[in-house]
Amino acid sequence: LSRIDEAIRRELRMAVGDAPILDRVPSHYLRDETEARGLNGEADAVALPATAEEAQTIVAWCYGHDVPIIPRGGGTGFSGGAVPIGGGVVLSTERLRAVRSFDPLLWRMNVEAGRTTAEVRQLARESGLLFPPDPGGGEQSQIGGNIATNAGGPHAFKYGVTGHWITGLEVIVAPGELISLGGAQRKDVAGYDLISLLVGSEGTLGLITAAWLRLMPAPASSAPVVAFYTEIDSGCEAIERVLGYGIPVAALEYLDPTTVELATAGFRADAPPGSFMVIAEVDGSAEEVVYRREELIGALQEDALSIYAPLEGAEIAALWQWREGVSLVVQAVRGGKVSEDIAVPVDRLGQAIKRTLEIGQIFGLRACSWGHAGDGNLHSTFMIDPASSEDVQAATEAARALFAVAIDLGGTVSGEHGVGLVKGGQLARQWQPAGLRLHERVKHALDPKGLFNPGKKLARP
Amino acid sequence: LSRIDEAIRRELRMAVGDAPILDRVPSHYLRDETEARGLNGEADAVALPATAEEAQTIVAWCYGHDVPIIPRGGGTGFSGGAVPIGGGVVLSTERLRAVRSFDPLLWRMNVEAGRTTAEVRQLARESGLLFPPDPGGGEQSQIGGNIATNAGGPHAFKYGVTGHWITGLEVIVAPGELISLGGAQRKDVAGYDLISLLVGSEGTLGLITAAWLRLMPAPASSAPVVAFYTEIDSGCEAIERVLGYGIPVAALEYLDPTTVELATAGFRADAPPGSFMVIAEVDGSAEEVVYRREELIGALQEDALSIYAPLEGAEIAALWQWREGVSLVVQAVRGGKVSEDIAVPVDRLGQAIKRTLEIGQIFGLRACSWGHAGDGNLHSTFMIDPASSEDVQAATEAARALFAVAIDLGGTVSGEHGVGLVKGGQLARQWQPAGLRLHERVKHALDPKGLFNPGKKLARP
Repeated sequence: LSRIDEAIRRELRMAVGDAPILDRVPSHYLRDETEARGLNGEADAVALPATAEEAQTIVAWCYGHDVPIIPRGGGTGFSGGAVPIGGGVVLSTERLRAVRSFDPLLWRMNVEAGRTTAEVRQLARESGLLFPPDPGGGEQSQIGGNIATNAGGPHAFKYGVTGHWITGLEVIVAPGELISLGGAQRKDVAGYDLISLLVGSEGTLGLITAAWLRLMPAPASSAPVVAFYTEIDSGCEAIERVLGYGIPVAALEYLDPTTVELATAGFRADAPPGSFMVIAEVDGSAEEVVYRREELIGALQEDALSIYAPLEGAEIAALWQWREGVSLVVQAVRGGKVSEDIAVPVDRLGQAIKRTLEIGQIFGLRACSWGHAGDGNLHSTFMIDPASSEDVQAATEAARALFAVAIDLGGTVSGEHGVGLVKGGQLARQWQPAGLRLHERVKHALDPKGLFNPGKKLARP
Repeated sequence: LSRIDEAIRRELRMAVGDAPILDRVPSHYLRDETEARGLNGEADAVALPATAEEAQTIVAWCYGHDVPIIPRGGGTGFSGGAVPIGGGVVLSTERLRAVRSFDPLLWRMNVEAGRTTAEVRQLARESGLLFPPDPGGGEQSQIGGNIATNAGGPHAFKYGVTGHWITGLEVIVAPGELISLGGAQRKDVAGYDLISLLVGSEGTLGLITAAWLRLMPAPASSAPVVAFYTEIDSGCEAIERVLGYGIPVAALEYLDPTTVELATAGFRADAPPGSFMVIAEVDGSAEEVVYRREELIGALQEDALSIYAPLEGAEIAALWQWREGVSLVVQAVRGGKVSEDIAVPVDRLGQAIKRTLEIGQIFGLRACSWGHAGDGNLHSTFMIDPASSEDVQAATEAARALFAVAIDLGGTVSGEHGVGLVKGGQLARQWQPAGLRLHERVKHALDPKGLFNPGKKLARP
């Protein structure tokens, strides 16, 4: 792979115009949320195309010159997927912000990759529509990055992950061609499902420049019910009761006792000390929410220490805002954290929560977890001082032990954050060799030179 | 590609045991629903494995001997995807019928490929759950075939196509390895989304032996509203009104005036002659359905000639049974039909319906269409005498003209039936060359010898 020297940087500038190429790389383009575990990259340049065609020119130039392309959205990833390693051009989609079309009466939007998730959701909401995926960090994360990682979030339980809402992609593929797959039509089986292949590929198969989003009528109302339990087991039983009762909850979250203890300060109601917390939410019409909420309280109140079920909009918004802040609060405890998004079958959730704590003890790190209980998706977290190389080392080993647990419980090393750099090679423990070969063949088929986000989403160590 | 002679057939038998290999191939293994347009195939043998391991042995043997493998489910396809061309071994999944696990309290099922769609749906329903995909022919079609074609159906509008409900696959890939992808966990981004790649790949990338299905609580109630309009335009306006009003309908179907005229005999209410029919359905709790139904009537009644809105369970079931029979009734008119499942953006539906009729006129064939209006998915149909080679030829040309219309309107040549044999090469008109190359590279990456269902789902002529 080539490094860019001054001469070819001039050539790149000539190819695409002066404005969008920065060769003094601002440091924030070299990291993402994994900074809290000490990850920093290096790059030769940052490209800031304003149109898909400019982006195409840049990718074609890079591909032709054997220069790596590191696609970058909002930089809110937890896996180092956007961290450039070993140089190359960081291609940021931040200026690709056009809403190419929005047809609220037809429940669809065509938007460029650089719009933030919050903007997309807000635009839909203003027309009474919902774009359901709600990963955290929506003010900063971009829709292109959400697609590239197939981002989830609390409401993915009912509504599915980002990929479920994509009907078309515009993407730049090797050696630098801009193609459209799908579009405004809602069904399409005319070719292999390359859209789904690109969704979640973390920039390793191509660069997404725009997408057609499917929208739905926004539910008129929603109501969360929060319940506290004395221990992990009774909390997990409550979670399974919600499913067993057949309540179509929109979200079904949990926080383990340590997380509750750390994050309780900003919480509006009393959280019993040392308790396990479940947040479930029903949505729908106002009438439906009234009786679904009662059903939900019925399912959750057995064994519960207390129940908190706000009805006012402001209080509900505050609850979810508090929930989104949990990650930062936990990080603040020691200044850094290693947090892994393993997912397991929902009946293994309790085991996964307990084994997270055991691993923390083994490696001498304070541990906790919270996450999307209904999807069996944990954020298993080890708190560290990022300046302590001992801590970083221990957390890295703890994360590896955690991945083994996820696989042992019939789950996955990544439910929603992706592989990026930090889970590189872990798939080798999860899939059989023949599956790994297919993973690698797909990569080679779409990116024969290996220039799209090199070193990321690797199947084998 | 090798033909099987007697000597190697013996070898195949020795490899897998005597029972499951038929060399006198019963004729029904050589065709699917495209028989009505004259398609019949040829094969050297039919393999009927009873376990995934037996299937693996057969595939490995075929792959090692350069013998084509033609996966076969229930044979209800409309694209010739299961029709063997040029010999090889038809591998039928009909004996792979085990329900490996069913956890109704956890909303999931692990089932082998040969269970019929109706059985899967029935099993779920008995526990108060719904497996939403409802393509036609459920009594005969198998879940493996539904997955291999990413089958749709009326309720895909609200609930998505088959692929949305798959969390794991067991699949035999080249050169004959049995692998698992995903499983009971509901989220997984640890590898490229090979599950979605195999979904809809029509047996050309591997053979599906089992799947993990996601289920949901069955809505307690549903209510269809049928409305009739004087013309296509006012009918399509009504369809757009349903969306524009933000009514979260579960299904949104249409039948054009010719279809209504042909199929009206078994219909329970009066269908105004020459009218365009819309069938919409709301579902949810009993209370919700009551007021959603009123909303729906409100959206549909403007310009409507009449409204039929049955409330009784038996009447509702009869309506949907009648709807499912439409295809056969139309086929009976002349003994055969060529019916293509193009899909367009929903605002282009009216144009696609009219152009279907124009194409029929140009080629001297009686034409009609019906389908999944909310998804912009037509079944554009030309009625033929299957014994008339003139008719068959005219219908083939009419279908080509129709594909051009679909693409011209920003849509796809296949919304739910797949490419199979009959739409082979049409993708070349829909995708840019770089996209076609990726389609072919993916095929080569997964099936380097080209032995999985050869001649199917081809991107180029």
